[in-house]
Amino acid sequence: MPTAESTLPAIDLAASSIEITRQLCDIESVSGDERTITDAIASALAPFEHLEVTRDGDALVARTTHGRARRVVIAGHTDTVPLNGNLPTRFETEDGTDYLWGRGTVDMKAGVAVQLKLAAELADAAVDLTWIWYDNEEVASDLNGLGRLAANRPELLAADFAILGEPTNSLIEGGCNGTMRVELRTTGRRAHSARAWVGINAIHAASAILDILAAYQPRSIEVDGLVYREGLNAVAISGGVAGNVIPDECVVTVNYRFAPDKGAEEAEAHLREVFAGVDLVVTDCAEGARPGLDAPLAQQFLAAVGGEAKPKYGWTDVARFSALGIPAVNYGPGDPLLAHADDERVAVHQIMECERGLRAWLQQS
Amino acid sequence: MPTAESTLPAIDLAASSIEITRQLCDIESVSGDERTITDAIASALAPFEHLEVTRDGDALVARTTHGRARRVVIAGHTDTVPLNGNLPTRFETEDGTDYLWGRGTVDMKAGVAVQLKLAAELADAAVDLTWIWYDNEEVASDLNGLGRLAANRPELLAADFAILGEPTNSLIEGGCNGTMRVELRTTGRRAHSARAWVGINAIHAASAILDILAAYQPRSIEVDGLVYREGLNAVAISGGVAGNVIPDECVVTVNYRFAPDKGAEEAEAHLREVFAGVDLVVTDCAEGARPGLDAPLAQQFLAAVGGEAKPKYGWTDVARFSALGIPAVNYGPGDPLLAHADDERVAVHQIMECERGLRAWLQQS
Repeated sequence: MPTAESTLPAIDLAASSIEITRQLCDIESVSGDERTITDAIASALAPFEHLEVTRDGDALVARTTHGRARRVVIAGHTDTVPLNGNLPTRFETEDGTDYLWGRGTVDMKAGVAVQLKLAAELADAAVDLTWIWYDNEEVASDLNGLGRLAANRPELLAADFAILGEPTNSLIEGGCNGTMRVELRTTGRRAHSARAWVGINAIHAASAILDILAAYQPRSIEVDGLVYREGLNAVAISGGVAGNVIPDECVVTVNYRFAPDKGAEEAEAHLREVFAGVDLVVTDCAEGARPGLDAPLAQQFLAAVGGEAKPKYGWTDVARFSALGIPAVNYGPGDPLLAHADDERVAVHQIMECERGLRAWLQQS
Repeated sequence: MPTAESTLPAIDLAASSIEITRQLCDIESVSGDERTITDAIASALAPFEHLEVTRDGDALVARTTHGRARRVVIAGHTDTVPLNGNLPTRFETEDGTDYLWGRGTVDMKAGVAVQLKLAAELADAAVDLTWIWYDNEEVASDLNGLGRLAANRPELLAADFAILGEPTNSLIEGGCNGTMRVELRTTGRRAHSARAWVGINAIHAASAILDILAAYQPRSIEVDGLVYREGLNAVAISGGVAGNVIPDECVVTVNYRFAPDKGAEEAEAHLREVFAGVDLVVTDCAEGARPGLDAPLAQQFLAAVGGEAKPKYGWTDVARFSALGIPAVNYGPGDPLLAHADDERVAVHQIMECERGLRAWLQQS
């Protein structure tokens, strides 16, 4: 019987970022099951003496301590959403573009691969670096490894600027929208459906809510020069007691994605205005993050990478840095529209672009 | 250890119908668990030589065979919906009315009690009698004991007229509405809710269906002199994939209660007209029954019992007799609005009225 040590999958940090992506993806690490990939990463980093590695559960923090004037955090999560027959990875060419296909290629092991390669190679960057690879990003917020680190070891997160490697097609995306979930509830009175007039149908009453949703025109809001597109959508509806009973309750769960000009209170106030008179309970909220592109390090990063910054629509952990007062942007390979998709795949040239962009900036800044 | 025989609960057919109701109710017989009550009834009937008793599973058929010109079926089910802390029974007085309170008192052991008492006592009625007590009325149609008898032993159901003892406040209720369930489905396209504009929200699309339901004016339709009130109601709605996904499907389950002027085809055609353009699948249908009050025996019964016949709104097993070409009415003690209720209770004077009505007719007809 082999020992645990001998069965640990190898990650070769001397290989290309593309090859490291493949190695990382082929280690299954659905949220809650990040132990093996974390062990493998820790083992791969062990030889590099310029990195001071700290482990907290299945999160790893690898820091340089050169005493530079500024410190940058570069972070990525190691977990993925569940598989759906999309591992092991494979290389494919589609319309002349080479892809690495499989779960995690976009969200976000290509970004982690680039980070690992640069963590190993950039022993002497112009800024001090704090690399973070963490667990449980794809599940409930209270399990999030970055949130746990921020609570347990806040000193490890201290920095002047942060980059999160979430997929952005290797373009810089600033800030993120906030997200709020509310339950809208209608009530009625049960009755046998053979004598419906004795009851009050709560599902019929929900027509007013769906009418509002169907007619709602989501706004586009400019924040610090970037335009954030909002969204207001039912993500679930449920009601019904039995096939012969007039239902006395119907619940519509609505997800509001709101621009980072607003905090949770303003977002809730907007929903209470939109659904005036409807029973509304906020069940979940994460505020967004302003783009943070006015920070000097962000300006330099933008100049080094080139291109134009865009807004990030999805909520990401940049908001956690934002909440700590650290300007943060998203920057990573992969098309975010393919994240979580069954045909998740990353264009390999984006992996190389991301590596070049980060390397160029870290060597000059 | 007592033998099975010795633990069989006793039903005393010399007692009053009210007392027999209490005895029957205190024998739990939720659908599928009618063995004990059926054994007890069979045992109570055994001494009466004018009855020829046949058992089929947990259904009993007790027939007189005097060679009369006409035969009447009088039937009732012995099962109840599940208990909810409402057994054993108790007597209560409310606003000067005496009630027997508990599961099954209304639906429909008071009716069965009256039937058992008359089956025992009317050894020489003017018509031949076929008493039927059957199982599994409160569950899926394919388990129904009367349906099973109709398939296994159709000759036992032959009759000129049928009375079903379902609760009608001891008034004659003719026929019954039909019932049809359909699933109305909207489809869309999944997307991450952070980029909702990439998807199509199927729950929002269901607003058109709920608008139709909320605005629908159910009809009242006269059939053979009785006015049947229809109903069209959502009894369930479901949709949603996850809290951050634009849903690609929403299903509204609708129950249509239709007057007995229509068969299944006409009912479906009406729904296809009301929900024109919506994906509609019929999942369940039971046609209603015309009142059957023009049959000579029905007219005599009406005259003997007195009062005015009313329409039955809920679907009942009279439709099974109707389908066999046997005119059938509902007639039993208890307020149908209290059937299945947690505070199910029967006004005891209705039990006596029902017994008097049936006895008067059977002795004269």
